[in-house]
Amino acid sequence: MHYPEPISKLIDSFMKLPGIGPKTAVRLAFFVLNMKEDVVLDFAKALVNAKRNLTYCSTCGHITDQDPCYICEDERRDKTIICVIQDPKDVIAMEKMKEYNGQYHVLHGAISPMDGIGPEDIKIPELLKRLQDDTVQEIILATNPNIEGEATAMYISRLLKPTGIRMTRIAHGLPVGGDLEYADEVTLSKAMQGRREL
Amino acid sequence: MHYPEPISKLIDSFMKLPGIGPKTAVRLAFFVLNMKEDVVLDFAKALVNAKRNLTYCSTCGHITDQDPCYICEDERRDKTIICVIQDPKDVIAMEKMKEYNGQYHVLHGAISPMDGIGPEDIKIPELLKRLQDDTVQEIILATNPNIEGEATAMYISRLLKPTGIRMTRIAHGLPVGGDLEYADEVTLSKAMQGRREL
Repeated sequence: MHYPEPISKLIDSFMKLPGIGPKTAVRLAFFVLNMKEDVVLDFAKALVNAKRNLTYCSTCGHITDQDPCYICEDERRDKTIICVIQDPKDVIAMEKMKEYNGQYHVLHGAISPMDGIGPEDIKIPELLKRLQDDTVQEIILATNPNIEGEATAMYISRLLKPTGIRMTRIAHGLPVGGDLEYADEVTLSKAMQGRREL
Repeated sequence: MHYPEPISKLIDSFMKLPGIGPKTAVRLAFFVLNMKEDVVLDFAKALVNAKRNLTYCSTCGHITDQDPCYICEDERRDKTIICVIQDPKDVIAMEKMKEYNGQYHVLHGAISPMDGIGPEDIKIPELLKRLQDDTVQEIILATNPNIEGEATAMYISRLLKPTGIRMTRIAHGLPVGGDLEYADEVTLSKAMQGRREL
């Protein structure tokens, strides 16, 4: 044991975070020692508060400090559209865009038979429950453009076909600012398929 | 404001750490939300404890939770040698080697006229005070092998020349496991100068 105990405990805590190895943990811990005491206390409080005061919205599954969350509660938002996404972070990404004014539904995962995650393990039953009162007219499937995300979108669209609700999938294509030269074949193929009249 | 307040505060705290930008901060904050509550509480406690219970040893300047530190207090260690280093982390590096059994003196910096750091701004006066009782027979200058570290080593060796204490500087050369091909010219030149008989 080379470090005094208080700092080795802090190093251990930092090492539990993703992407932080032993060297970075040491660097961060020593940095904390040189921070002002009130900043460190704020950090400690923020950790505890984030863990204790945040829950998932009982309606949409987004992370929130009040239930229902500020999006579900907002009367100015369009209640007839639900955007289905995998993760609360995706809500943030969508909200940053400032163009979407409907509801969200966070699945908290995607169907992945390889990992033993089936439709019942993510919030698909909760989605079905939200559709019972016939207010929803469109569901935008915005799961990630990978195998699991595609499978999930496909599953939901087939499941809800009988309801007659309009189902859409966000477009695949080249990212804005991207470079044709470096695009992979699948993306390029999707971009060609999704081409539009000018 | 896209995030609920508790998480945005946590994100802000993470962003105060070195090398952690907005995206990593968001990732870490969301990771914390999924951690077990007692792990998060331990993390918060570790932060506060590290800040509150750690001080610098009044003798050597190493970081410690008791004063004097465990190295200065250890009677089995050689009191006649002092290894002068820049940073408490360097003590840890030296101790990992498990070959050095003397004392340390942490300068907490290096002389750097460009940044306005002179000999009085780092713990050189404290080093002189430790030499007053004639127990020390050798000083190993193990400051970093860069301009500031070299200048500091040079300054201390000239300052202490009149005392007659043996002054040594750690060797420069190729790191073990390194590759001649990728060594810079200065290192290679130092390695040549420092060559030894076999």
